[in-house]
Amino acid sequence: MGECIRGFGSDNHAGVHPEVMAALQRVNVGHVHSYGDDPHTDEAVALFREVLGSGVEVFLAFNGTGANVTALTALTRFCDAVICSDTAHLHIDECGAPEQVAGVKLLTAPAPDGKITPEGVAAHIAGRGDEHQVRPRVVSITQATELGTVYAPNEISALADCAHEHGLYLHVDGARIANAAVGLGLELREVTGDCGVDVLSFGGTKNGLMLGEAVVFFQPELAEHYRRARKQGMQLASKMRFVAAQFTALLTDDLWRRSAQHANAMAQVLAERVRPIRGVEVIYPVQANAVFARLPVEVIPILQQEFFFYPWNATRGEVRWMTSFDTEAEDIEAFATLIESTMTERNAS
Amino acid sequence: MGECIRGFGSDNHAGVHPEVMAALQRVNVGHVHSYGDDPHTDEAVALFREVLGSGVEVFLAFNGTGANVTALTALTRFCDAVICSDTAHLHIDECGAPEQVAGVKLLTAPAPDGKITPEGVAAHIAGRGDEHQVRPRVVSITQATELGTVYAPNEISALADCAHEHGLYLHVDGARIANAAVGLGLELREVTGDCGVDVLSFGGTKNGLMLGEAVVFFQPELAEHYRRARKQGMQLASKMRFVAAQFTALLTDDLWRRSAQHANAMAQVLAERVRPIRGVEVIYPVQANAVFARLPVEVIPILQQEFFFYPWNATRGEVRWMTSFDTEAEDIEAFATLIESTMTERNAS
Amino acid sequence: MGECIRGFGSDNHAGVHPEVMAALQRVNVGHVHSYGDDPHTDEAVALFREVLGSGVEVFLAFNGTGANVTALTALTRFCDAVICSDTAHLHIDECGAPEQVAGVKLLTAPAPDGKITPEGVAAHIAGRGDEHQVRPRVVSITQATELGTVYAPNEISALADCAHEHGLYLHVDGARIANAAVGLGLELREVTGDCGVDVLSFGGTKNGLMLGEAVVFFQPELAEHYRRARKQGMQLASKMRFVAAQFTALLTDDLWRRSAQHANAMAQVLAERVRPIRGVEVIYPVQANAVFARLPVEVIPILQQEFFFYPWNATRGEVRWMTSFDTEAEDIEAFATLIESTMTERNAS
Amino acid sequence: MGECIRGFGSDNHAGVHPEVMAALQRVNVGHVHSYGDDPHTDEAVALFREVLGSGVEVFLAFNGTGANVTALTALTRFCDAVICSDTAHLHIDECGAPEQVAGVKLLTAPAPDGKITPEGVAAHIAGRGDEHQVRPRVVSITQATELGTVYAPNEISALADCAHEHGLYLHVDGARIANAAVGLGLELREVTGDCGVDVLSFGGTKNGLMLGEAVVFFQPELAEHYRRARKQGMQLASKMRFVAAQFTALLTDDLWRRSAQHANAMAQVLAERVRPIRGVEVIYPVQANAVFARLPVEVIPILQQEFFFYPWNATRGEVRWMTSFDTEAEDIEAFATLIESTMTERNAS
Repeated sequence: MGECIRGFGSDNHAGVHPEVMAALQRVNVGHVHSYGDDPHTDEAVALFREVLGSGVEVFLAFNGTGANVTALTALTRFCDAVICSDTAHLHIDECGAPEQVAGVKLLTAPAPDGKITPEGVAAHIAGRGDEHQVRPRVVSITQATELGTVYAPNEISALADCAHEHGLYLHVDGARIANAAVGLGLELREVTGDCGVDVLSFGGTKNGLMLGEAVVFFQPELAEHYRRARKQGMQLASKMRFVAAQFTALLTDDLWRRSAQHANAMAQVLAERVRPIRGVEVIYPVQANAVFARLPVEVIPILQQEFFFYPWNATRGEVRWMTSFDTEAEDIEAFATLIESTMTERNAS
Repeated sequence: MGECIRGFGSDNHAGVHPEVMAALQRVNVGHVHSYGDDPHTDEAVALFREVLGSGVEVFLAFNGTGANVTALTALTRFCDAVICSDTAHLHIDECGAPEQVAGVKLLTAPAPDGKITPEGVAAHIAGRGDEHQVRPRVVSITQATELGTVYAPNEISALADCAHEHGLYLHVDGARIANAAVGLGLELREVTGDCGVDVLSFGGTKNGLMLGEAVVFFQPELAEHYRRARKQGMQLASKMRFVAAQFTALLTDDLWRRSAQHANAMAQVLAERVRPIRGVEVIYPVQANAVFARLPVEVIPILQQEFFFYPWNATRGEVRWMTSFDTEAEDIEAFATLIESTMTERNAS
Repeated sequence: MGECIRGFGSDNHAGVHPEVMAALQRVNVGHVHSYGDDPHTDEAVALFREVLGSGVEVFLAFNGTGANVTALTALTRFCDAVICSDTAHLHIDECGAPEQVAGVKLLTAPAPDGKITPEGVAAHIAGRGDEHQVRPRVVSITQATELGTVYAPNEISALADCAHEHGLYLHVDGARIANAAVGLGLELREVTGDCGVDVLSFGGTKNGLMLGEAVVFFQPELAEHYRRARKQGMQLASKMRFVAAQFTALLTDDLWRRSAQHANAMAQVLAERVRPIRGVEVIYPVQANAVFARLPVEVIPILQQEFFFYPWNATRGEVRWMTSFDTEAEDIEAFATLIESTMTERNAS
Repeated sequence: MGECIRGFGSDNHAGVHPEVMAALQRVNVGHVHSYGDDPHTDEAVALFREVLGSGVEVFLAFNGTGANVTALTALTRFCDAVICSDTAHLHIDECGAPEQVAGVKLLTAPAPDGKITPEGVAAHIAGRGDEHQVRPRVVSITQATELGTVYAPNEISALADCAHEHGLYLHVDGARIANAAVGLGLELREVTGDCGVDVLSFGGTKNGLMLGEAVVFFQPELAEHYRRARKQGMQLASKMRFVAAQFTALLTDDLWRRSAQHANAMAQVLAERVRPIRGVEVIYPVQANAVFARLPVEVIPILQQEFFFYPWNATRGEVRWMTSFDTEAEDIEAFATLIESTMTERNAS
């Protein structure tokens, strides 16, 4: 089986969308200033403002960890805490970067389906508030969540209200913000700034870029120290035009939407195909481009021989199947067929 | 004047070398694992081992700040200091990332021509060594230096010996390591591992990559914690193949050498063209791809109207002219002619 | 009510034991070297070695936060995590100092009665272990716990074994280590080094010192960087003799034991006096110098009018009553009588 | 030679002033709340306000490193720098605590006699100011300086004006602020708040306390986050009354002044006694309680056999002699006689 087979491991196992690759070539002409002081970066920022509002401040970064951590650096001081879900990528998968680089403490709230609630947030805010405790300063949610679910606009608004009422900011880790918007059938702005989001890590890499994330401040004054946060956080590209051009492509002709729609649709197809299979259970609502399923533990390695994917909780037989902009209907069909036949065989034995 | 005019601002004002761009397209096929667990990364690492020695450990990062700071993170503990020149990029231009992210204190040594000496290093090592003072742990030099000069192999060996004798490591910020090797007429290995360098930040971006630096450990055991340093330091690309492919291109058919040779040659041509001009003084040896010159303060903005470059010390009339892989002979000739005519006019008045 | 009334707020509401105060005066003669290079510090260290083993390395610090955080600094690197209970002082009450100063991430384990278990520890160690996650490096337990319970020697040994098996260290926050040893009827050494504890924060302040904690390394090589951790952690007293003299007093004629025995006994008396009162429930085993009780929410402020103490969980009517070396039998009797009469009145109404 | 002999090593080799010791005993009665919520702390703060101005905010800390670093933590953000002298204790003797704990970069200015100038400060402020560089945020001076000299009020005002003009704060490391005020014949307020100082680390330990420093904010709003900076910086004493009582003693009946006057006078006597000795040179103005002298290198160990003191620059034969509140005239006379006889003997040989 050649390496060009598409699996379901992650949307970052996919490559670069052709329109993005074309954009990279297009800007590879002559000299321009470095570090973002160039017309290509201006163009990308202008497109962001068209999509997210004319008042936003936008900065480009290398990766999701970098976007999240530098955003938190800019929003917090030495004594501050960030409230996030106990399954948040920020908490589980950043190797301590929020604590070590941004210098914040994370306070976790329960999130059975990946989503925290104002009650979970309030429990942390209701602390004693004295000097022995950190000061909650930011609520950070992941959209779409790590479990493939999506916060509805009213859920985001409720979290924003709760945060703002107590002087906190709402940050969104939007590594899959496009998948979330598409899943909700809404514009990007309707699920971010319009809901009271203060700062957004706008994901590009998982939606077909080579690399690149954007940090978007819906309140420009919050961006006051961001440039230095990005530089110190080692997220400042010297040849910035090549990050910018990718976002220009993503925001042109709704590429972000087309790619996310496709990936989400593929997840729906996969979910619908496997739901009827006896012994396979889809365990979270499929609202973006992930399908979480539970199936017999011993079946997992059999499937992995042909299609790569990650176990989510190996002992409980829970797995994660991600789709991406380049997943094809045949991939789904071949995979579903394999699951079906494997389960049939097993159920029969 | 269109944006495709090449100036002398920085080698990172140039774009991407065509062979690098071609490599990016070549690897944009199908799905591969993320975070470097892919055949393209293996290929790049194998090439590094061919060039730098079979025993090196190599890791790819986004940018120079990231490569330097994560390398220092891996080499140091909370109480450690890094000795560098007082003109080091690390000290002047990283917005405090070494202190804030790697958690080291920088101790500076004098470097009139950009190069520190064993005496300068020894002065810091000879401290009281008690608990009131940080522990010098790493010597970090820039090669080629910020002033366009190059450490000779015996100079590097002397620094390595001095460092090792006292239990310190020698780190090289090699943002322009290719230019240095070419300037010395030596192989990359001869100016790094063979001289006792422990860790090298191998620069790609300034030598024609879109983005990408490599951290090379010549003593594999020093790399023990590097993977986590890179992740926490937000330098871990998810779609790593696209960083790897660039290095594969750079290390194939000596692209690194061809590009650096060209840039260096252009700097020599420029230096030789301007040396005879009355009122223009080339102030440091031209050993890589930079020419530092002193000229009348009022002449600088006149030149900048047609060719972009940075003043180095505006009040002293010192300027920096960088050449790059895509600088053309006509660029040099046009610029030198402009300098000549401007100075002639001024000298006549 | 004058300020000399003793309440049940905390053992750090008490003052300084007279034997400690006498020791402070005794050493206040002439000049001695600063920062611990003096005979009084040598004397204290020698006493620690008598009590805890001749091979221990001992360093004095100002306070408990400082002792804990500098100990963790010395034991960890940038990518490391500390496993502690979800009610640990380290996690709840240090204003983020472990994260911000020691640079560690805390991973919490459940501890219904204040004590974590090897299972809870193992759950964190069993992580993926890849670069996306921090490396568990230390298990930290509080002895006596924040809930007034005490780890038995076999419980500590089990945690030490679990830690060591996976390359972790066992640290004990011993702010009330004397109360724990006395509660168990054991020597200090039998509940620390003999159980496999690697590093102990030995509490003095809560047991009658003016201020002072000691960091004890049972494996001397772990102390390699501790002096700098203490200095950088701002815990190095210049006039060290005055911290040392207090510990000398504490370790002379078993003052540590006499004081802790008294405090523990007072807690027992209080617990036994209130247990029979209808509506008052003692909610954790009373094994050191704290009594946790649940009582009707509206009764709490009535009692607080005469005796100061803290609610532990106000909404659940849970309170904490601490005794100290200077608590007197009459204090207990007066307090218990008040509780009795208040509850009787309430129960009658 | 017994340990009660007073040397000239440091003012922190002295013990505790009897009035301070008496105050410690006086407050050792009954229970009071911890962490500064007690009447003794209120009393000390009230005295500070009498001396330094009714609007100041005052917080007590353990030691000088702690006072300085937590003050800087409160004044700065992640991207900020502190400008100090190249001989500053902050830079030389804090084991990197400013960088590692407060997270600031130090930018040093020349200070031939221990004092920096507005020109030295301005050179750092005049940087490019872009995101590649840290933001100068605080100017920190030491008063009296590490070289025993004292900034005159107009020198402080000039630094304050320079700082404020560019949006920076002026911090004073006042480990020896009493010696400085006395040396100038001025009130504490006249050399601090009245000169535009924003934050003062008010030293107690070197002027006869057992331990204790105060952080004084002359602009109360700057204290907004200080409580958490102190807690996280591990400088919050639980039995605060015993730090407070010492300051109450120091500020009662001008003890601070009497002690500093005595120490300063002893330094003058020593300087005047040794000045006429051939081969001994007093190298800095004696303006506080230190005498710096240059003498033949081989003489130093001979003197040290009888009186302890530190070499300042051993190779240049420079030494530092500190006096303290308990230095006696006979100590000076005995020491000067020894120097005299040793030098006479040497000069004769």
